[in-house]
Parts: sequence; C-alpha cells; structure tokens
Amino acid sequence: MKRNIKILIQYDGTSFSGWQRQNNATTIQQTIEEKLSQFMREEIIIVGSGRTDAGVHALEQVAHFKTNSHFDVETILYKANALLPKTIRVMECKEVAHDFHARFSATKREYKYVIYNDLVCPPFKRDFATHIKKTLDVNKLNDSLQLLVGEHDFTSFCSASDESESKIRTIFDIELIQDEKEIIIYLRANAFLRKMIRMIMGTVLEINLKNRPIEEISQLFESKSRDGSYTTAPAEGLFLSRVWYP
Amino acid sequence: MKRNIKILIQYDGTSFSGWQRQNNATTIQQTIEEKLSQFMREEIIIVGSGRTDAGVHALEQVAHFKTNSHFDVETILYKANALLPKTIRVMECKEVAHDFHARFSATKREYKYVIYNDLVCPPFKRDFATHIKKTLDVNKLNDSLQLLVGEHDFTSFCSASDESESKIRTIFDIELIQDEKEIIIYLRANAFLRKMIRMIMGTVLEINLKNRPIEEISQLFESKSRDGSYTTAPAEGLFLSRVWYP
Repeated sequence: MKRNIKILIQYDGTSFSGWQRQNNATTIQQTIEEKLSQFMREEIIIVGSGRTDAGVHALEQVAHFKTNSHFDVETILYKANALLPKTIRVMECKEVAHDFHARFSATKREYKYVIYNDLVCPPFKRDFATHIKKTLDVNKLNDSLQLLVGEHDFTSFCSASDESESKIRTIFDIELIQDEKEIIIYLRANAFLRKMIRMIMGTVLEINLKNRPIEEISQLFESKSRDGSYTTAPAEGLFLSRVWYP
Repeated sequence: MKRNIKILIQYDGTSFSGWQRQNNATTIQQTIEEKLSQFMREEIIIVGSGRTDAGVHALEQVAHFKTNSHFDVETILYKANALLPKTIRVMECKEVAHDFHARFSATKREYKYVIYNDLVCPPFKRDFATHIKKTLDVNKLNDSLQLLVGEHDFTSFCSASDESESKIRTIFDIELIQDEKEIIIYLRANAFLRKMIRMIMGTVLEINLKNRPIEEISQLFESKSRDGSYTTAPAEGLFLSRVWYP
C-alpha cells in the first residue's frame, strides 16, 4: 500500500498563477509536483487543502500525496527544498494515516488579510499588503466584518466561476488587529468559496472609503447576487495562514 | 539661493547594484536622481548619508539635494513616489537649513543584520535575512560581537577598496535580539568603512560555525590585515536602519 505523506508549505504567490495546475501557466501545485516527481522517480500528484488565486500567499498550506518510494521524510523535505525555487518552501513533512486527505479532512481554515493604511507603502510590504492611502475607519471596518460571521449563503460574496453546489458556509469568527500602520484581519471558516475573502474585503473597504452604510451587507446577503458595484480586493494582501484537522 | 531638501528613503536593495551612481548598472542613487530631475525639470544630484552595497536594504537612508524649483515638499514626495519603482519609496520630505549635509552632518549610523537560523528559510525572508541552517551559539555570537565595540583601527574589517585615509572608527554599541528563529543584530557607530559590517559578521559567524576561539578578533585587530581566511557575510541580511543628526 502506498504511503501517505503530509507536507506543510509556505509560498510567496507573487510570481505564480495561483495554486492549481493549469496549462500555459506556472502554478504552485505544478511546481511542487514536478520537483517531487523528479527525485522520487514516480509521478507525484499533490492535493492541497484549498486553491489560492494568483498573487495570494500561504503561511501554511497543507497538502498530501501518495508514494511507493522509501525516502524518509527528512530526505523528502531536504530534496524538495533543494530543487524548489526559494519562493516555495516545504516547512514540514510527515507520514500520516492512509485516510488523511488535505482537503476533505480539513475542519477549519484561516486566512489573513493585510492592509497597509498610510500615504506611502514601504517597499518591503509592496507584495504582501494591500495599500490604502485614505485613513480607514477601523471601528466601522470591524463592525461591517462582524456582519459576515455565522452561517450564511455567500452567493453574493463569491466568484461566478465557483462550482460548489451549495454556497452556504460558516464563518466562525473574524478578528481585526491594528499594528501601527497595518490592519490585519483573520477570517476563520469551515471553508471558503472562490474569491470569497477578496470579495468580502472589497465590499467592506468600499463601504468604508465611500461612507456607505454597513447595512448594505445585509442587503447583499438578501439579494443573493453581486450587482457589480463592489470591487474585489487585491490578491497581494491575502495569506492562507492555517488549516485545522481533527 | 537654492533650497536644501532632505528626504528619508526606504529601499529593497535586492535588484539594485547598490546605492552609488555608476556606469552600466542600475543603482538607487541614480534611479532617484532620474525621477526627481524628470519632474523638477532641472538636474538633481542627491547626496546620501552613506553608500550601501548591492543587495543591501535601507529602512531609513537619508539624502539631501539642492533645487531652484518651487515645488512644495508634499508635491515632491507625491511625484517622486508616483515615478519611482515600488522597490524605492520616499517616506518623508522636508526643507532644511542650507548647511545640512546628509553625509557630513551625520553623527551616528545604525545598521541591522538579520540572520534566519533554522533548517528551512521561509520564502518571505529569502531576500531579507541571511539563512544559516546550523544552530548558532547565540551567547558566543554576542560575546564575539562585543569585542568589536569601542574605538579601533578596523583595517582588518574593511574592503581593500575602501579609500578612507584613517581606518579608525568608533562602534558605540552592538545589540543582539533573538526573536524565535531570527537573530537580529544592531550595530551603531560614528561611521562604517566599506563592507565593514559584512566582514565583521562574516568573521563572527565563521568563529561560531567552526568552533574557533573568540580571541581571534583581538588577533585580527593586531594584525591590521585580513588574511583571506574569513568570509564576507551576504548582503541580503543587511539594512541601513537609522542615521542621527545634531
């Protein structure tokens, strides 16, 4: 029986066309699969906890793959990192139970959205925060975000390309932390729909910047459609930061 | 009489051939001069507090320039940042006394050297820390660094290309902070010689990694020459972090 290997991955998503393998584009999944297959001398297919869009980063993406090889986990970690570009790192590697599945076994996911709120964005933050010059009303931002917490039909907050049958998801909690010029928002849910966080962030930022009422959130939930008047917030501020398993 | 303008600059030095203008290479000084000259419609020459090598970053480089223009400082800041690449940012801009000189008026400089000490270096640190896999003896590292504090002839700790007549400099203090896997070292001096910090760091790291005695520091001071057996630590961990003026 094939061994089941779990890896913890960090990546700087700036120069990748997202996580998922696709034709004519360099993706994170495909880059990792190529390098693993190269030294393990068998075709390796990895399954991630979820897909991240182009430009989105990960502090803790989890993936698993099956292998016939006898490489120990230290060797897999070492060889993978020796072959991978420095923008992708395997931080941990271990053998797990055969039924562990990075996507289906996950019970909770956390994403972090970082905003740099000042006139000038430091060069070191340019790819790792969304730069907003106009001073945000942080209390209002938090109030509008809290309206998203709970079990909801998130049809109005996901991409039309999302193929999930049900658009009902549960956001367990949203935490906002202010650290000097940075506003850091943690969103924790059972699962997220395609572009859900960037559409949530685009909506609450627009409500803030244009002095619109936070009641628009409830109206959006009710309408079950996105009328196109809201933007999708940039990818560079978004990080997949944690995935929980039983 | 021309106005004297002081600017505070941050830069990610990764893709630049250092601070100083030179032929056939893209430098930070030259990039800023080009953009300022472009919208101010006169030739602008900037003077920095000091030169940084290729790959070295700045959290607070200070420079000044003279101008006949009447642009207010907010406009200079805005227009410069609109034209500059995102790897260089003008963080502050103000008019100062005619005799202010970014280099000669500076009384104290601080550099920060960042080491990431773990088996795997996170992708987000790849250009902003020196990665060392083998666990360092942090107490010994600090002990060896303290031997550099004070007024010394730093001939053994500077590049042969340094053209200063006197190699005597005063390091006021060196502070080491450990933050999880990061070791952050602050070095404060009246001034530094060419490659001085990278040669200091190369020496103390080699003493640490090869279990050599810290007394080698005193021997190096006495010999007044660098015998080539010590390495120069990488540029990516180094940041110009502060410059003091009276």
